[in-house]
Amino acid sequence: MCSPLVIERVRGVISRRRLLGSVGAASALALAARISSALAQDATPIAGGGALALTLGSYTSVYDLTHTITPTTPVFPGNPQPEIASFRTYEKDGYYSNMLTYAEHTGTHMDAPAHFIEGMATADALPVEQFFAPLAIIDIRGRAASDPDAQVAPDDILAWEKEHGPLPAGAFVAMNSGWDARIADPESFINQDADGVLHFPGFHPDATALLVEERDIIGIGVDTLSLDFGASTDFGSHVTLLSSGRYGLEGLAGLANLPAAGALIIVGGPKMLMGSGGPSRVLALS
Amino acid sequence: MCSPLVIERVRGVISRRRLLGSVGAASALALAARISSALAQDATPIAGGGALALTLGSYTSVYDLTHTITPTTPVFPGNPQPEIASFRTYEKDGYYSNMLTYAEHTGTHMDAPAHFIEGMATADALPVEQFFAPLAIIDIRGRAASDPDAQVAPDDILAWEKEHGPLPAGAFVAMNSGWDARIADPESFINQDADGVLHFPGFHPDATALLVEERDIIGIGVDTLSLDFGASTDFGSHVTLLSSGRYGLEGLAGLANLPAAGALIIVGGPKMLMGSGGPSRVLALS
Repeated sequence: MCSPLVIERVRGVISRRRLLGSVGAASALALAARISSALAQDATPIAGGGALALTLGSYTSVYDLTHTITPTTPVFPGNPQPEIASFRTYEKDGYYSNMLTYAEHTGTHMDAPAHFIEGMATADALPVEQFFAPLAIIDIRGRAASDPDAQVAPDDILAWEKEHGPLPAGAFVAMNSGWDARIADPESFINQDADGVLHFPGFHPDATALLVEERDIIGIGVDTLSLDFGASTDFGSHVTLLSSGRYGLEGLAGLANLPAAGALIIVGGPKMLMGSGGPSRVLALS
Repeated sequence: MCSPLVIERVRGVISRRRLLGSVGAASALALAARISSALAQDATPIAGGGALALTLGSYTSVYDLTHTITPTTPVFPGNPQPEIASFRTYEKDGYYSNMLTYAEHTGTHMDAPAHFIEGMATADALPVEQFFAPLAIIDIRGRAASDPDAQVAPDDILAWEKEHGPLPAGAFVAMNSGWDARIADPESFINQDADGVLHFPGFHPDATALLVEERDIIGIGVDTLSLDFGASTDFGSHVTLLSSGRYGLEGLAGLANLPAAGALIIVGGPKMLMGSGGPSRVLALS
């Protein structure tokens, strides 16, 4: 457990910035304009001037909430396996490096608002203030162990608050279903039945709506393949979360090592032009 | 400027961990063993138990030290341009995502020890304690403006210390040559002459040796394409830094927005299996 964390957000600044990112028909001209705009933004502070005041306490440990991406990393059905190909070798070149090819939504990764909602922020346009948040962990391992279709319900949020107090302002709310332990067995992680239906836990759309509409959160995350549970047909949690301009994280690792309340999540999100999301290095302090 | 930052490292723990990562002949069997080992590590805390005690002060601003990766991002000669290819579209699929293909050493990225030194840690094996460090910025913009072959010299380190006091324990030392402003003009950023020689600033190997051998640093970084200056033929700074088990960052952005001393760098490094480095989301608090 750590000392108090206070985050004050200047809402006007963030709201205006959220509207900056949009993906339209990517003509060559539009692409050139987008590149130019992105690079101009690189040269100036992305945050600052009091847009965020972080008062951090004392932390004793750093945690890695990120799975290693490998050629056998489980991916959402329809996505290709990531490829890691030799590019430079010690023998031939005197040094070592690889070429990488993967779909953005691979491994521990971000879903940016633009992943589902045209015109909303792409990953590269998210203000970096949103990459620091008090982490609230909803533990549904008990139910998920016997029911792979378990979902985080509004009552789970209320039970967390009964035990730990109101969700802190700007919180990131993560589901711990224990699913990360299945990562080495892709079939068990994806858990697709004979009819093609996936079975893994996620956020019920009603819980996501509660968080987006009645609490002050910065995003939600899961330790499974999708913010919505595997059997979802309407992707209600994706739509509710992403249409509000908030981002999600999927495939989180090691949440069980952290306290339910009091940790700080730090999201090293992707910065590929017009990214719909992508592999992220997700860290936590506690 | 921010409040005091104190980092105490338990050296035994870090040294042992540094030795864990190694890249050998990647036979299928060795690869399977490596995947298994990486995934087993995912399920346990990477850090904790007092391996690092972070006492963070009060920060008012978050900074992004990361360039956006685009199809025209300048790359080291011989490396391919990154590709961002449409994969899912709103029109066809109801949502949006891309396929990415790039060489690991693209954009704002890490050089892991294994990039140059066989048997040293790959990026995925670096302990995450090493991703948090007091940031010391060496400003050579004045010299670099008139001499693209300018290098950070031992005297620059000593001059920094004269002004700001001894380099803090576990510091990350970054060169600000002003080169990030050239990012939108790849030819100017790479700056290759008619004979094929590159001209951009970097760390002189003597400065890197001073930092590695006589100071307590966690890594070094540059705002150019390479830790060594463009005209280097022996890559002396790479060899000295990486053979010591430390990592480098190349292509940093926006260092001019930060104070020379007192900021905290947070490195969202890549976690691809056996990575020689790769695109990183580099953030700072000040």
